[in-house]
Amino acid sequence: MPVISLKTPSAAYDITIASGLLRTLSARLNKLTKGKPFRPFIVTSPEIWGLWHKQVLASFKEAPTVLFLPSGEAHKRLASVESLAQQLATAGADRDSLLIAFGGGVIGDVTGFLAAIYMRGIPYVQIPTTLLAQVDSSVGGKTGVNLVAGKNLVGSFNHPLAVLADTDILATLPPAQLRAGLQESIKAGIIRNAKLFKYMEQNADAILKGDAKALTHVVTASVRVKADVVANDERESGLRMILNYGHTIGHAIEAATSYKQLLHGEAVGWGSIAATHLGLSRKLITQAQSDRIIALILRYGPLSSFKATAAKLVALTSSDKKNRSGTLSFILPTSIGTVKIVRDVTQPELLAATESMLALMRQHTAAPVVTRKRKR
Amino acid sequence: MPVISLKTPSAAYDITIASGLLRTLSARLNKLTKGKPFRPFIVTSPEIWGLWHKQVLASFKEAPTVLFLPSGEAHKRLASVESLAQQLATAGADRDSLLIAFGGGVIGDVTGFLAAIYMRGIPYVQIPTTLLAQVDSSVGGKTGVNLVAGKNLVGSFNHPLAVLADTDILATLPPAQLRAGLQESIKAGIIRNAKLFKYMEQNADAILKGDAKALTHVVTASVRVKADVVANDERESGLRMILNYGHTIGHAIEAATSYKQLLHGEAVGWGSIAATHLGLSRKLITQAQSDRIIALILRYGPLSSFKATAAKLVALTSSDKKNRSGTLSFILPTSIGTVKIVRDVTQPELLAATESMLALMRQHTAAPVVTRKRKR
Ligand SMILES: NC(=O)c1ccc[n+]([C@@H]2O[C@H](COP(=O)([O-])OP(=O)(O)OC[C@H]3O[C@@H](n4cnc5c(N)ncnc54)[C@H](O)[C@@H]3O)[C@@H](O)[C@H]2O)c1
Ligand SMILES: NC(=O)c1ccc[n+]([C@@H]2O[C@H](COP(=O)([O-])OP(=O)(O)OC[C@H]3O[C@@H](n4cnc5c(N)ncnc54)[C@H](O)[C@@H]3O)[C@@H](O)[C@H]2O)c1
Ligand SMILES: [Zn+2]
Ligand SMILES: [Zn+2]
Repeated sequence: MPVISLKTPSAAYDITIASGLLRTLSARLNKLTKGKPFRPFIVTSPEIWGLWHKQVLASFKEAPTVLFLPSGEAHKRLASVESLAQQLATAGADRDSLLIAFGGGVIGDVTGFLAAIYMRGIPYVQIPTTLLAQVDSSVGGKTGVNLVAGKNLVGSFNHPLAVLADTDILATLPPAQLRAGLQESIKAGIIRNAKLFKYMEQNADAILKGDAKALTHVVTASVRVKADVVANDERESGLRMILNYGHTIGHAIEAATSYKQLLHGEAVGWGSIAATHLGLSRKLITQAQSDRIIALILRYGPLSSFKATAAKLVALTSSDKKNRSGTLSFILPTSIGTVKIVRDVTQPELLAATESMLALMRQHTAAPVVTRKRKR
Repeated sequence: MPVISLKTPSAAYDITIASGLLRTLSARLNKLTKGKPFRPFIVTSPEIWGLWHKQVLASFKEAPTVLFLPSGEAHKRLASVESLAQQLATAGADRDSLLIAFGGGVIGDVTGFLAAIYMRGIPYVQIPTTLLAQVDSSVGGKTGVNLVAGKNLVGSFNHPLAVLADTDILATLPPAQLRAGLQESIKAGIIRNAKLFKYMEQNADAILKGDAKALTHVVTASVRVKADVVANDERESGLRMILNYGHTIGHAIEAATSYKQLLHGEAVGWGSIAATHLGLSRKLITQAQSDRIIALILRYGPLSSFKATAAKLVALTSSDKKNRSGTLSFILPTSIGTVKIVRDVTQPELLAATESMLALMRQHTAAPVVTRKRKR
């Protein structure tokens, strides 16, 4: 059973990735708290609970208290945190309580933040239920919520006692969610693990079908990349920035479409393609490497298309990427498996790369014949 | 100029107590950030700003941005934190910003918490403007807000870069606020500094008149007690509990009066008296010591009276003070300047001590002649 140990200056914990973890949940929690009695509180959404409560409850003698957060990014707000904190207080939760985040990235980010601030900090455990949460959001200790002014603008660095990623739970995930999450695994391959990249090239069918062995392999390798980067730069002062590969244009796309048309992973996929074009135009990578990257991203599609001009996307590129000189900082590929931070990307250069990405999008959405046939 | 250095496992900073600190504020902030450019944001209330903005602004070449929080405990809520965070984001605040808490304990607790979670943490400075904030709340890193379910139920341990306590600012403080805050200084004397206690006995007139030298002495000695305790037990796993002397019954009184009739320090004064009665009945202190403690607390009064039976107050004693055996934990005086934690206080014992305190209150509020005369 793959177990990855993550040690940072502020915490040390294990990320376990396997099928069937829920079956032994209660015993696993007891081990984590070293036999000290604790009161478990599960934070989840009604949908996820509806699908998985039997399996979660199976191992408990006494049922944990369950607190609900409605699904969706719109609920990743301080008002939700306050409502959950109020429910905890009313139920008598104290420092001997343990929160269990059972859901995707939204549940994980909210619950981790709630654990950081309830009574100035109580322990929590992550049980991620989406691919994105298993490979990305549950690992690394970033927690928080959105403001009207922007995403993730308030939060805490707060690591869980453990991450338990049961790959069985992915079975009920809508296929589009699975595919979008896999874009973060492709990213992990591009920035730091050529073997993972190759594995995803060679096993795309099995992975996309949700084959347990293949998924466990991909999740494990992706988590290893993230854990390794976070261990070296917990507070994002340097190396951790490479995890934002594909995210600069990705975030611009999300902003241009009001965070409504694309899943996060899809926007990252398009952003990765733009970054690959930049890398190619700078001759940091070869044409062959660029082709492989783009082919793999599209293989795990289709990525939803969107309407936005290159000029608009460049304009939306967040101002914190801008250097004093007026140039922009980008993470660009230098091979499959390595990237570097380039700090002198000019606006025309970025515009050209974004145009190339949009041209590719038009190509791929110009022939929706197959899709139509399927629908009939 | 008294400077107290506080070093905990998570932070190290200075608490400066002096008259005239505001005049050199800008230079002091520059020193703290070691010349690195930063953007200051002041969080304050309209009332305090109205009284002191000229003095605050005097030392700045470019005026800092000011964010307002209305006065009052009712605004110590997550909604205020969200609104302030939103204002920070709209104004473009980032990790190179510096928050300045300019106000009493409410502003300090809210701003310290805002600094803990805005962009997962930005630096802040405390400029406490009430006596309570100077001697207590600005020191020690506890920050947070209230829930409907209870006070300070969400928050962070988050130390400021510095505390600048300008005793001049106390000049505009309503006398009742000054007196109530001084109850926390008396507490500091009882638990850990017999000299401070004696100083407050011998210089009551000067202190209550707001004499600068006398106030600086009291604030400095009080902060020294708190800083010393916090340095030895940042996260309140042991020693730090002694700071709660007088607070168990104090909190019960606040709850019984819906946090509306008494100032916090007044409730603590009554609570201290009850704890002193307990100490006396257990013969931990002598009658003479008990008399001195009670006399000093009343000397810094009058403490507002309230209506609540002893039975009600004992019932409201928070459940976290209750041991498995059904007894209660209390901090009790063992002399003037020392306390110990007693874990086997029985309900009848506590009831008797609370009755004694209420009897004393009736004695002192039975003769309101002086007050009436003044009003005419
Ligand atoms: N903390 C971090 O480091 C980090 C990193 C990346 C992303 N994030 C955050 O993660 C969030 C996105 O997470 P997400 O993609 O998991 O979205 P999500 O949490 O919104 O989940 C997506 C949807 O899938 C449903 N769902 C979840 N698990 C399911 C299952 N097993 N079966 C069926 N349905 C299921 C959910 O109810 C939801 O409707 C964003 O808020 C993003 O900011 C955080
Ligand atoms: N963080 C901690 O360790 C800690 C410790 C003790 C208390 N507290 C908290 O502190 C809060 C109470 O603080 P407080 O007693 O300072 O109350 P406060 O902040 O509400 O201030 C009291 C009143 O005085 C006014 N005021 C402040 N400074 C003034 C000045 N210089 N001139 C004129 N008016 C002025 C304010 O506008 C307010 O109306 C409570 O919320 C309590 O929980 C925190
Ligand atoms: Zn991402
Ligand atoms: Zn107090």
